[in-house]
Amino acid sequence: MTSGNGGLILGVDLGGTTLAGGLVDPAGTVLRAHSVPTDRLGRGDAVLQNLLEMVDQLQGEARAAGRPLLGIGIGAPGVIEVEAGTIGKDMYQIPELRSFPLGRVLEERTHLPVVLDNDVNALTLGEWMFGQGRGLRHMGMVTVGTSIGGGLILNGALVRGAQGYGGEIGHIPIELDGPDCFCGSRGCLKLYASGPDIARRAQELARQSPGSKLVAMAGGDPGRIDAPLVFTAAAAGDPVGVSVVARAAQALGAGVATMINLCNPELIVLGGGVLEAGDPLLDAVRRWARLYALEGAAERTRIVRSGLTKESGVVGAGALFLYERGYRHLF
Amino acid sequence: MTSGNGGLILGVDLGGTTLAGGLVDPAGTVLRAHSVPTDRLGRGDAVLQNLLEMVDQLQGEARAAGRPLLGIGIGAPGVIEVEAGTIGKDMYQIPELRSFPLGRVLEERTHLPVVLDNDVNALTLGEWMFGQGRGLRHMGMVTVGTSIGGGLILNGALVRGAQGYGGEIGHIPIELDGPDCFCGSRGCLKLYASGPDIARRAQELARQSPGSKLVAMAGGDPGRIDAPLVFTAAAAGDPVGVSVVARAAQALGAGVATMINLCNPELIVLGGGVLEAGDPLLDAVRRWARLYALEGAAERTRIVRSGLTKESGVVGAGALFLYERGYRHLF
Repeated sequence: MTSGNGGLILGVDLGGTTLAGGLVDPAGTVLRAHSVPTDRLGRGDAVLQNLLEMVDQLQGEARAAGRPLLGIGIGAPGVIEVEAGTIGKDMYQIPELRSFPLGRVLEERTHLPVVLDNDVNALTLGEWMFGQGRGLRHMGMVTVGTSIGGGLILNGALVRGAQGYGGEIGHIPIELDGPDCFCGSRGCLKLYASGPDIARRAQELARQSPGSKLVAMAGGDPGRIDAPLVFTAAAAGDPVGVSVVARAAQALGAGVATMINLCNPELIVLGGGVLEAGDPLLDAVRRWARLYALEGAAERTRIVRSGLTKESGVVGAGALFLYERGYRHLF
Repeated sequence: MTSGNGGLILGVDLGGTTLAGGLVDPAGTVLRAHSVPTDRLGRGDAVLQNLLEMVDQLQGEARAAGRPLLGIGIGAPGVIEVEAGTIGKDMYQIPELRSFPLGRVLEERTHLPVVLDNDVNALTLGEWMFGQGRGLRHMGMVTVGTSIGGGLILNGALVRGAQGYGGEIGHIPIELDGPDCFCGSRGCLKLYASGPDIARRAQELARQSPGSKLVAMAGGDPGRIDAPLVFTAAAAGDPVGVSVVARAAQALGAGVATMINLCNPELIVLGGGVLEAGDPLLDAVRRWARLYALEGAAERTRIVRSGLTKESGVVGAGALFLYERGYRHLF
């Protein structure tokens, strides 16, 4: 913690597998960051215990550095009741915390104001306030990893909607009679392009082509095919890999085009593990998006890859606090 | 024009077939309204001539009644450059007015402030300020007629987006490999559910079933099948009619679900000629929307039919002026 003595935000990115926390200044710079497995001490109550320890540690570090804390921002999976500071009742990534009033519990413990929201909303605010969306009035974000999430800034405001679902692009229907989804619907975008779905589709095809390069790359066991392997196989020209990746790009392009037509943002930022497959995927998504979207809307919408790092969730949580508590004059 | 002496808005609904205009008070009441064919005096320059005559007449009526005019609101088809007051370059409904600086021309002629926007945005503002959306922070509108349009109010503000495409739901892809669309894309919502597309699909199917009730209802000529006839045939149990209407409802439900997931409005208002087919269609759209949307988002989104009348476009144009010029304290 080198310079300055102004107030900091304690940002927490509560993920299904990793818990990250840090001290962020109002310019979006991370001064201190830590991450541990979400279930470091085990599951159940221990998940909350890990979170509280992380917060205690960062509070201590801020105190030691003589920097006051403005408050706490937290990004968490699923739909959040932002006003109440409560985790959603259907959140499946960390079932221990379903319906948990995390905001209130942390406020009572730390005597700091706490803002809790969906992790992709926090990432979107981070990109808007400190990243590639700076200065724009309209932008969207789509994260493609274990699931598909999204966030929207329209007219200079985060779109949460009536119950916090705003931006939820993962389960929009892109095929009227597509396969069934666990959500109760069918043909959802997620089924074509999330990491686990890419792996599942490749496994299904690979079982029909046991002699394929992809199966050989998986050590002969189609069950060991995961999304990174599918992208590697596609890059090497394996037909199964090429086919699954092409379909994922087409589906993501349709989803991006839907966001372009309905919301007409100036920028759409794509992030998440699946996008780390690199430029060929991004280029294919762009091509499909331009085909599916209205030409006039698409021609001036930039589609870029997020510069997300391990610390992006912490920056986003800091941005969330600043945005929600009206500190916009500081950045 | 019975009571009051406060300022009025001159509202114009410039449609592809009908030109409507009226005097609207800040409570959304229409005090005087007229409509004529858009091309009453012919096409070409005569279209503008008709519009100017309508405006002159209404200005005269306001003057005669001793009511000052606050300004002019106009809803027109296609994407509008709102800041410049210019009709879109791709507008196909009234090609005579493509790229025409209608706002500036009317301001110079009338010495009144003019606000020009897309007709569905105007309708959406009318429903929000004076109709079923009063008092809500988030609502959507979908109009289904010759084409499919949409409008969005999110966080209490109209979503125009970067170039005015905000709300354009008609060409979102709902089938990755669906039929080609004139817009250059494929599988667009419009292809399944607009009035002309409903007629086209029914004609195609009817030609394969020349003995069907629908063909008999069309006097034996499948080419005479239009959308109202398809709905009548469906209500009478004709298999072709039932099939086409069912598909249209499924597609509209997917479109509405996409709006629910991405924007999570409290209300979605459905309007336009196709919705006049009645409650069975509306009920089917609702069922499909609830299947395709995330349950938590859909369970509190009301889906209703617009109470649109012949004057709704004029009311919407009035609402557009009041919204854009900051007269929100008046209503």
